Amino acid sequence: MSSVLAQALVSYEPNGGDMDLRFEDVSIRDLKDDELLIRLVATGICHTDLVFGSLPSPFTTYPKVLGHEGAGYIERLGTNVQVGKPGDAVLLSFSYCSTCGDCSTNHPSYCESFTALNYQTDPDTFLDSNGQKICGLFFGQSSMASYTIAKQASVVNVTSVIRNESELKLFAPLGCGFQTGFGAIDVVASAGPDDTVVVMGIGGVGFSAIAGAKLNQCNTIIAVDRVPQRLQLAREFGATHVIDSSETQDLVAEVKALTKGRGSSITLDTTGNMKLIENGLAMTANRGQMIIVGVPPMDAQLGVHLVSFMQAGKILRGCIEGDARPGEYIPTMIKHFRAGQFPIDKLVKFYPAKEYNKALSEMKDGQTIKPVLVW
Amino acid sequence: MSSVLAQALVSYEPNGGDMDLRFEDVSIRDLKDDELLIRLVATGICHTDLVFGSLPSPFTTYPKVLGHEGAGYIERLGTNVQVGKPGDAVLLSFSYCSTCGDCSTNHPSYCESFTALNYQTDPDTFLDSNGQKICGLFFGQSSMASYTIAKQASVVNVTSVIRNESELKLFAPLGCGFQTGFGAIDVVASAGPDDTVVVMGIGGVGFSAIAGAKLNQCNTIIAVDRVPQRLQLAREFGATHVIDSSETQDLVAEVKALTKGRGSSITLDTTGNMKLIENGLAMTANRGQMIIVGVPPMDAQLGVHLVSFMQAGKILRGCIEGDARPGEYIPTMIKHFRAGQFPIDKLVKFYPAKEYNKALSEMKDGQTIKPVLVW
Repeated sequence: MSSVLAQALVSYEPNGGDMDLRFEDVSIRDLKDDELLIRLVATGICHTDLVFGSLPSPFTTYPKVLGHEGAGYIERLGTNVQVGKPGDAVLLSFSYCSTCGDCSTNHPSYCESFTALNYQTDPDTFLDSNGQKICGLFFGQSSMASYTIAKQASVVNVTSVIRNESELKLFAPLGCGFQTGFGAIDVVASAGPDDTVVVMGIGGVGFSAIAGAKLNQCNTIIAVDRVPQRLQLAREFGATHVIDSSETQDLVAEVKALTKGRGSSITLDTTGNMKLIENGLAMTANRGQMIIVGVPPMDAQLGVHLVSFMQAGKILRGCIEGDARPGEYIPTMIKHFRAGQFPIDKLVKFYPAKEYNKALSEMKDGQTIKPVLVW
Repeated sequence: MSSVLAQALVSYEPNGGDMDLRFEDVSIRDLKDDELLIRLVATGICHTDLVFGSLPSPFTTYPKVLGHEGAGYIERLGTNVQVGKPGDAVLLSFSYCSTCGDCSTNHPSYCESFTALNYQTDPDTFLDSNGQKICGLFFGQSSMASYTIAKQASVVNVTSVIRNESELKLFAPLGCGFQTGFGAIDVVASAGPDDTVVVMGIGGVGFSAIAGAKLNQCNTIIAVDRVPQRLQLAREFGATHVIDSSETQDLVAEVKALTKGRGSSITLDTTGNMKLIENGLAMTANRGQMIIVGVPPMDAQLGVHLVSFMQAGKILRGCIEGDARPGEYIPTMIKHFRAGQFPIDKLVKFYPAKEYNKALSEMKDGQTIKPVLVW
């Protein structure tokens, strides 16, 4: 085995719910036919990484390498790979099978094998220096490493649209968080000038949603969060109103007051907080849609009072990855960035990969919106 | 008061949950500015009549005249009425305010005052022979009477599209049940050739939904009911498959087996039965929509497991009156009838109004799909 040496952030079985991450030297197995060896330059950290680094086994596997917002260059290719050539710049996104009913109708984020291809892992992608196996291919990429193996389906070749390596690093989060928020408003909700949009939770997903609402000329865009600096920045992204949820007694009433009593035509929850989700459904106007993109507790049930829900003609919908096709949507988002309509440079803060603890800490306390590890 | 004399089916406070209907002589008060006096020729019976004739007070008022699928002729007009002239043929539909946000954007079935204008009643529309007040204007029409007062908003003038009085009688149910089913598929779901549709509960609403799915060329149309004759007729309306729910152990598995394992892209529940609604959400495919049009128990909550709902990108939506604009949609449905695409003559059975007990009994035991009382 002509193993490649790398450094990786390895996620071990958590102690009492806290993630156990360790920066380690690893080696990487040979490529299979549909895989690429990627030299990473940057990897965004997303809340989904934290979820899968905190779950107890057997709900997930350990040790493993997390990371699903990778940016880098192709180093080597498996024999069946057609997505590029060595040296090409790539962004990594979720994986999908390409052949099921959802994939073949161009909705790969609803791939029938999504769980298997993204949340489950490959048992022996990496080895540590003691020969211990470390799982890889999380989201088809396990990109929290200086080198990794990625599935061809996860690879978006951006060689022709990237100007330099600094840009490539900045764009790392486009493959998950940013397309989730932007796509929820732009692709899923098909927002337009008649829409009044509420975005609950202003992180990477929420800011992207606000930018998407602004780009689609929504007449009212209300940002809800409890971090004042984020609400300030939300205005720069296009929010017409902001609500500090820590200072509000009645969020539904505040939203109704801002929307002539009607409520929001599009309500997006990025938090997974059940109290906010319940409020979100209540503040949604007749015929309006409440879109769930934040991950709620694994067993959470939302009680929908059907008679009033029916009477109001409301819509409740779930959404994954903004229903985006990364190969087309990532270049589109880059175009919006270049046009000044998606200022993701205001969201990203870079950290040397070894300073992952600082990145996580500043993400959790709210001062960093989108931490990106640099390899 | 130049009172008009009429015969009406009066609904009294129910005894132990059973409706108490009595055929009585009544007089009718003078018209207000926005009202019309209508001479009725026929009135469809809808399940919503049964709901509002069975509710205990104070959830509804008694005595009152039910009926919200009226067909007849204009007898007199209030001073502000512009919808027609005496002698014009009309079909009666739901009422709406015409000015709220939903009405002014052409979604009158979501009128902000829908409850007040349709489910609530006017206290003194009718008087019985003892001078006892009887409530009217149920759905802006209270059309279970030989003459009634209707709100202008409830009146659709069909003089130019009706050929004779027999047709007018046949079309009575277009104003509620038929547009609810047809509109749910055609207007709300915007069904098309790629859709696989499941309709649960094949009554007037369900048959209309099947006709709507056929007209929109949906590739698979599955009818679910427990009355074999209805399933047989469903095939004539366009169902490609039928499932007898009384003979099925696992409805979800049966639907998946008929849809290459994917499930239905549009699932319509017309029953309000919570077990069927839960099954309906489960059988709905990734990115598919489950539409609720049947009235569930007033306090029913549907528990939605959010993580799996989100992962599948499903849509749950409520729908009233097919989101139809009766003034435009009723003539459209008549056109479909004339083209042989909406054979409502196969659904309707006429009863002399005095035989309302027979009509109700044959409706409840399933042998009559859409009873229409003739005045």
